[in-house]
Amino acid sequence: MSDKYILGVDFGTLSVRSTIVRISDGFEKGTASVRYEHGVMDTHLTAGNNEVLPPDFALQVPRDYLESFQRSVHEAVENSGVAVHHIIGIGIDFTSATILPTDEKGTPLCEFPEFSNRPHAYVKLWKHHGGNDQAERLLQVAKERNEWWLPRYGGLLSSELALPKVLETFEKDREIYDRAAYFVNALDWVNWLLTGKLVYASADSGFKRHYQDGKYPSPEYLEAVSPGFGSMYEEKMAGTIQPLASKAGELTEKMAQWLGLEPGISVSVGNIDAHVTAAAIQAVEPGIMTAIIGTSACYIISAPEFKEVPGMLGITYGGVAEGSWCFEAGQSGFGDIFAWYIANCVPAEYKEAAKREDLNLHDYLTKKASVQEVGEHGLIALDWHNGNRSILSNHNLSGLIIGQTLTTRPEDIYRALMESCAFGARKIIETMKEHGIEIKEIVAAGGLLKNKWLMQLLSDVTGIPLSISEAVMVGALGSAVYGAVAAGCYNTLEEASAAMGNKVSNVYKPNEDRSKKYDKLYQEYLILHDYFGTGTNQVMSRLKKIKEEATKSKIKKEAVNTPL
Amino acid sequence: MSDKYILGVDFGTLSVRSTIVRISDGFEKGTASVRYEHGVMDTHLTAGNNEVLPPDFALQVPRDYLESFQRSVHEAVENSGVAVHHIIGIGIDFTSATILPTDEKGTPLCEFPEFSNRPHAYVKLWKHHGGNDQAERLLQVAKERNEWWLPRYGGLLSSELALPKVLETFEKDREIYDRAAYFVNALDWVNWLLTGKLVYASADSGFKRHYQDGKYPSPEYLEAVSPGFGSMYEEKMAGTIQPLASKAGELTEKMAQWLGLEPGISVSVGNIDAHVTAAAIQAVEPGIMTAIIGTSACYIISAPEFKEVPGMLGITYGGVAEGSWCFEAGQSGFGDIFAWYIANCVPAEYKEAAKREDLNLHDYLTKKASVQEVGEHGLIALDWHNGNRSILSNHNLSGLIIGQTLTTRPEDIYRALMESCAFGARKIIETMKEHGIEIKEIVAAGGLLKNKWLMQLLSDVTGIPLSISEAVMVGALGSAVYGAVAAGCYNTLEEASAAMGNKVSNVYKPNEDRSKKYDKLYQEYLILHDYFGTGTNQVMSRLKKIKEEATKSKIKKEAVNTPL
Repeated sequence: MSDKYILGVDFGTLSVRSTIVRISDGFEKGTASVRYEHGVMDTHLTAGNNEVLPPDFALQVPRDYLESFQRSVHEAVENSGVAVHHIIGIGIDFTSATILPTDEKGTPLCEFPEFSNRPHAYVKLWKHHGGNDQAERLLQVAKERNEWWLPRYGGLLSSELALPKVLETFEKDREIYDRAAYFVNALDWVNWLLTGKLVYASADSGFKRHYQDGKYPSPEYLEAVSPGFGSMYEEKMAGTIQPLASKAGELTEKMAQWLGLEPGISVSVGNIDAHVTAAAIQAVEPGIMTAIIGTSACYIISAPEFKEVPGMLGITYGGVAEGSWCFEAGQSGFGDIFAWYIANCVPAEYKEAAKREDLNLHDYLTKKASVQEVGEHGLIALDWHNGNRSILSNHNLSGLIIGQTLTTRPEDIYRALMESCAFGARKIIETMKEHGIEIKEIVAAGGLLKNKWLMQLLSDVTGIPLSISEAVMVGALGSAVYGAVAAGCYNTLEEASAAMGNKVSNVYKPNEDRSKKYDKLYQEYLILHDYFGTGTNQVMSRLKKIKEEATKSKIKKEAVNTPL
Repeated sequence: MSDKYILGVDFGTLSVRSTIVRISDGFEKGTASVRYEHGVMDTHLTAGNNEVLPPDFALQVPRDYLESFQRSVHEAVENSGVAVHHIIGIGIDFTSATILPTDEKGTPLCEFPEFSNRPHAYVKLWKHHGGNDQAERLLQVAKERNEWWLPRYGGLLSSELALPKVLETFEKDREIYDRAAYFVNALDWVNWLLTGKLVYASADSGFKRHYQDGKYPSPEYLEAVSPGFGSMYEEKMAGTIQPLASKAGELTEKMAQWLGLEPGISVSVGNIDAHVTAAAIQAVEPGIMTAIIGTSACYIISAPEFKEVPGMLGITYGGVAEGSWCFEAGQSGFGDIFAWYIANCVPAEYKEAAKREDLNLHDYLTKKASVQEVGEHGLIALDWHNGNRSILSNHNLSGLIIGQTLTTRPEDIYRALMESCAFGARKIIETMKEHGIEIKEIVAAGGLLKNKWLMQLLSDVTGIPLSISEAVMVGALGSAVYGAVAAGCYNTLEEASAAMGNKVSNVYKPNEDRSKKYDKLYQEYLILHDYFGTGTNQVMSRLKKIKEEATKSKIKKEAVNTPL
């Protein structure tokens, strides 16, 4: 296998990454990254009539995926210098619950001229929240009916899942809904184009489409939520569901030519973008947690048995590998919070001082914060600036900082924010442990790996050793691992991940003294977490409501004051 | 009286202000301000051997007062162009519980060569907190013995009062204590020099020296706190106590020459610096609250009858005027909090934009914040960055801000901090009202008068009309009003204040719509106030303790790591 390669493809929010990976050892021989032309349409329908979109919308253009995909593959192959006939398979991953309506043949409805100005004809990106109302009602009815699958989603129902997005179309643009032969994940849609047949991937189906234990939510439930919606799964999502790391099909002649690859090569069932990381960093086995720490944070772990863990984003059998249950949790803000702080809360003097030391502000503040003793700043923060995904699953929560005095300095607050994110991670880990999930190691990936002090903090706060990955394109590499199994190069995902994945073990180990001190601060975090998060004082929700009303009243006033 | 003048003198924390005031109408004919040479000694004993002072120390040099006093009077007289023989009296005010040990003749002990390097021989400034331990024990024993005077001080005992300062000297430098013939307020000490006789002023005695209903705390109580301390009042504070606006004596020949004034003119009993404001702004009558809004905030109001109001700094009969009870409360941080925010939390882009608009950052942020609707920022803050003086009287409390999202901007936080200070003021006002104190008008003075938006906010949040004063040197003018009564120019303080004081009525009136909206936010403030302030979650105190321990541990480590 030392001269055989797999193409791994990772469709992210703004760009697609391709990597040509050697099957024998996972070496990334050539990579390329290409952005989507229209990016995310969240204010205007720029690919159509440029109309203003409602708040909470986040749409994409299917054609963008294809154009960027083609270019990135051409470039990656060229960069790799690998002869095309040595590339024997493809594995892809995609942002998940990124869903679009198509006709019978897979043509996206937005590509029909009559639908090009209809927002609901486009791709609804994972972070499209236009179906907030629908999600609330879906949850309400599921609770009333005590739907058995609800605990698999932490007892909650996010508007980022597929169901509210489709229901939104059903209720808001019935013509599009009626005209759609399929609502399909962008993930499966790309594979459909590549192989000529539609296969739904098991992981995305379990985590995002409410497919659990071999079935979807019942028509009775759907009908109870919205009359006429009962047959949605049957009518709009008919198709085979296949497990991860299996072969979805083979590359068609036409698509092979389009991509510049050999026809007939294996195309594996696709996976969720965050989840493939586990395979790329050798964290597919039970007990090893994948932590993807970037603007937000995503945690994935396998366990041999099903456990009902509250606040999970999803619990799915075979979600990472066959034979085990996969549990996913997340923090909706992480690096985003530090970026917000840098942009809005750091004085000019610090900017100048950082410049003099030739550091960016993140590094400068980290350096100043790192010489402190644990607890020296006297602060505690809650990491909810973007809401709380796990364990509380509440988008109406917000940030908090406590303990400021007239001598509190920027590095104090910056450090407190970093600590709050680490405490948030610990809360997730401890909740999993309390419910019977073993966690003995964390393997970290993502953009914040570069902040070594933060990584050490995570280890100190959680008390768990931290391994890291040095993979160049961790997502695309992960997809290549799945692709290699589907192409028959390895017998199991575990075997492939061990051979091709990239992990440097125990780079950060918890410091006993600091861990003990953080324990004390974490107790304070927990008290605030529960007080503000579990209903005792719902001030954060009330402030959001007051804010909404104030904004509405302002818009109204401005409208009155604007001359015609 | 139209050609007669009074010299008003206002000794502040860093400088002394003198004003030559026309008795008939309060016109300020000439003013001057001179800083103290050594300022506040809070890190090193710069007037002595420059030794490092313990934390919480704040000392001053008595000689500084005199030199600055002399210069400021010379300059004010010169600036006024008033002939010296037309100046017929002096009234002074001073920071309060600013106390020094002297010999029998009034010579400060720090001026004896053998004591020049002894911190306890110097003036302990109002904000000297070196007696924190003593204050705690004094309170403890007072509570155990159920001392009758305790409710007059809100049931608390601040280390800023005279008693803990003297007890600190008794316990920390017994030689100084034994050598002292008197512990005297700087206020009364200056008058002693001017007239040749020691008179204790009633207001300072009531508010700061525990003199209530004609008596001091009992020897038994003092003895129970610290054996040997029982006779302190008798031995170290013997002297007549005289009411406000009465004559303390006449200017001696020697001091007249020193100041360049006529000998024999009236010197009135002195008053507390903040309190004289009431006379300067026509707020001495019951129902009219004096609000001095600067770095911190001080609230003074008179009422015809005694009421037990919790959280007052002091309740004293004749504290502002004979015949009524005076209630004092305060916020330990106000403008200080905004200054901290500007210095530590505003990004370079804002600094540049403010510069382009030729505004300082306070005005720039106020301008940006002022266009918002009430509640639009979605934030609530607690104004405890410098602790809470009233109603909670707890220095271990700290700041809090809640509701931050990734779209929160600097003007949002700045506005929330301003609102938190207004809510803090309302909490004080409502507590007074609940306990039977009538408040129908607020007259504001102080440095923050210049922020008109903030003044309107105070009126909106409290629902009370706000008058302001345009006096040039409001403190010194107030002292001149007392001085005029003592000199016999008016029969009563009320009469003098009405004639000489400066007030522009009802400049800010509450806006009904905004007041209603602030009511909602104030309810949220109250919930947080009680949760963090009254013992449910003492996280702020615990964070302070953790901070102290961390700082100690750091100092220890640094000491170990420093090569000899």
